[in-house]
Amino acid sequence: MKLATLKKGGRDGTLVVVSRDLSLALEVPRIAATLQAALDDWAHAAPLLAEQYRALNGGLAEGAFAFDPAQCASPLPRAYQWADGSAYLNHVELVRRARGAEVPATFYQDPLMYQGGSDAFIGPRDDIRAREAWGVDFEAEVAVITGDVAQGSPAPACAGAIRLVLLVNDVSLRALIPEELAKGFGFFQSKPASSFSPVAVTPDELGEAWQDNKLHLPLTVTLSCEPFGCPDAGVDMAFDFSQLIAHIAKTRDVAAGSIVGSGTVSNRQGGLNGAPVHKGGVGFACIAELRMLETIETGSPRTRFMHDGDTVRIEAFGADGQSVFGAIENRLSALP
Amino acid sequence: MKLATLKKGGRDGTLVVVSRDLSLALEVPRIAATLQAALDDWAHAAPLLAEQYRALNGGLAEGAFAFDPAQCASPLPRAYQWADGSAYLNHVELVRRARGAEVPATFYQDPLMYQGGSDAFIGPRDDIRAREAWGVDFEAEVAVITGDVAQGSPAPACAGAIRLVLLVNDVSLRALIPEELAKGFGFFQSKPASSFSPVAVTPDELGEAWQDNKLHLPLTVTLSCEPFGCPDAGVDMAFDFSQLIAHIAKTRDVAAGSIVGSGTVSNRQGGLNGAPVHKGGVGFACIAELRMLETIETGSPRTRFMHDGDTVRIEAFGADGQSVFGAIENRLSALP
Repeated sequence: MKLATLKKGGRDGTLVVVSRDLSLALEVPRIAATLQAALDDWAHAAPLLAEQYRALNGGLAEGAFAFDPAQCASPLPRAYQWADGSAYLNHVELVRRARGAEVPATFYQDPLMYQGGSDAFIGPRDDIRAREAWGVDFEAEVAVITGDVAQGSPAPACAGAIRLVLLVNDVSLRALIPEELAKGFGFFQSKPASSFSPVAVTPDELGEAWQDNKLHLPLTVTLSCEPFGCPDAGVDMAFDFSQLIAHIAKTRDVAAGSIVGSGTVSNRQGGLNGAPVHKGGVGFACIAELRMLETIETGSPRTRFMHDGDTVRIEAFGADGQSVFGAIENRLSALP
Repeated sequence: MKLATLKKGGRDGTLVVVSRDLSLALEVPRIAATLQAALDDWAHAAPLLAEQYRALNGGLAEGAFAFDPAQCASPLPRAYQWADGSAYLNHVELVRRARGAEVPATFYQDPLMYQGGSDAFIGPRDDIRAREAWGVDFEAEVAVITGDVAQGSPAPACAGAIRLVLLVNDVSLRALIPEELAKGFGFFQSKPASSFSPVAVTPDELGEAWQDNKLHLPLTVTLSCEPFGCPDAGVDMAFDFSQLIAHIAKTRDVAAGSIVGSGTVSNRQGGLNGAPVHKGGVGFACIAELRMLETIETGSPRTRFMHDGDTVRIEAFGADGQSVFGAIENRLSALP
C-alpha cells in the first residue's frame, strides 16, 4: 500500500492512504490520525489500512479525493530518528580520489552512518532555505521506515522490521562540511532539514523492485529540468537496509518510526567512478560527485552548487512507467 | 514548576506535575496527556500546569499521590531531537593533553555538538545494557528542552525558548569511540541510549541557580555509592544554552521538544585540568576524565570503566539541600 501525510491537522499532519497510481487519497481517522500513530501500532493498523487501499484502488472508497503532492508534508513531518548510511561506496571513493586519499578497508566491512536531525523535516515540495555561499547540494537517496527493533538484532530480523520505503533529498551544505568534520564529531550545521517523497510504500507493493532489502529502480534526478542522473539504487549498494538497521541496533533499541537512509545513490559504471549524463553515463545523485569527477579529470570542479531558484527533482518510476513515490521537488530559496 | 513522566499509558508515558519537594505527583490528562503534547502547545498548557503545581505544593490538589522516581520514564521517553554539546572545554583539553595534542583554537569560539539518537531513551532508574568490553562510561550533564526556534535565531532569542532544565547521563562506550570517530562521521554505536533525571524543571523554579542560561549547581556523581565528582555546572561552561541552541538553529528550524545537552560537566580547578575526589578535588563527571588525568600523571590509566552491577548516581541539590531533579541511577547490566 501507499501512504502519505497532508499538511493539516497539527504538527504530525494527517495520514492518508494513496491509490497505486497516485491519483486518489483517503483520510483514515478511525484507523490512525498520523503515520507515527500507525507505526506505533502497526500490527493492528496495517491490515485496516491495506483494506482501505484495496477499496481506493477499486474505486470503492467513500470520501476519496484527488491526491495533490503539493499538499503533502514529508510522510513523517518529524521523526524520532533519522539515521543515514553511506552504502554506495562509489560516493566515498569519489570523495577520497578527488583529494588523493585511500578508502579505509573497514569501509567495505562496516557501514558508515551518521545521526541526522529529525525534529523538523521540510516537505517534498518545500523550499530549501540556505545561503548560496554554504554550497547547497542535494543527495538523492532511498530510505526505509522501521518498526521496533530490539538491541542486538541480527540483519535478517531487522529485514522484517522494514515497514515502508521512500525517497529522500538529504540536503547538504558542502561549504560547511570540511570545517565541521575537522572538529571530529560529524555533521551538524552542514546537514539541514531533509525532505522525503510525498508517498511512502510498503515493500510488498514494490514487487520485483524490492529484493535483497534493496530498491531495484533508478532514481531520476533533474536540476532545474535538466537531466542530472539516473543511477540505479539496486546497483553498487554495499550494505542493504537490513544491515544498516542492524548497525544501529548493535548497542541500542531502535523504535518504530525510525527512518534509515541509504546514502547518496551512486553507480560505478564499469569501475570508472561514473560518468555524467552529457557524456552518456547515468550521471549522479548529487552535485558534489560530478564536481569530484571534474576535479579528478581536470584538476578543478566546473559545475556550481545550487543557485537561488534552482530546483532539484527526485523521482523513481516503476516498470510500468508510473511514478512510485511521487516526486520530491525542492527549490533553493536563497537567504541573503 | 516540576514535571515528570510515568511509565504508563503508552510509548510517551503519562505526564505528571511533581511537587517542589518531589514528594507528590498529579496526573493532568485534561491539560496534556504527555510532556511532548504540553511542549507542542506550551503557551496554553504552561499556565494551567503551573496552577496545578501551586495547588500540589499547597496540599490542595485532588488526586495527588506519592511521587516515585522508580516509576518514571525519562521526561521525554522518545524525543524528536537530542543534540549534545561539549561546552566544558576542560573535558576536551584533558582528552587532548592525554594524547599530547593541542585543542584547536576554533573550539573556543564555536560550540562542538553532535546529533544523538533520541528514539528510545532509557529511564532514570533503568539498567544500561552493554558489554563491559565496550568500555561503559557515564557522562553527567545538564540539558534543556526547547520550544520552537526559527532558523537563524540569535542566542538571546534562543534563551527565550528554554522551557525546561534537567540532568542527563550520556552513556558512552569508550572502547568503540576511537574507531568510530576515525571514520569521520562522528559518534553512532558509541553513544547508546541516554537517560535523564526523573524530573524536568522550569528555569524560573531554579531561582538564583539559573543565571546567564546556565545551571549554577554542582552535579553530585557517585559510582556504586563512592563519591566520584561534584563539578559545578555553572563553572567553566564556555558556551551557555542559548548559544548551543543558536548553533543548532543556524541552518534549520528547531522544533519544540528538542533536548540540548551541555556536554560532560568539568571544572578546571585552578587550571590543572582538575583533581580526583580522593585528592581533595571536585572530581569528575565521567570515568574517562579521571583516566586521562591518570594517563597525564603516570603514563597510563588506573581506574576501570563500569563493571557489571556498577551503578552511577547523578543528582543536583539546591541551596536548601533538597534534590532538585531527583536522581538518575543507572546500573550496568552487562551483556555476555
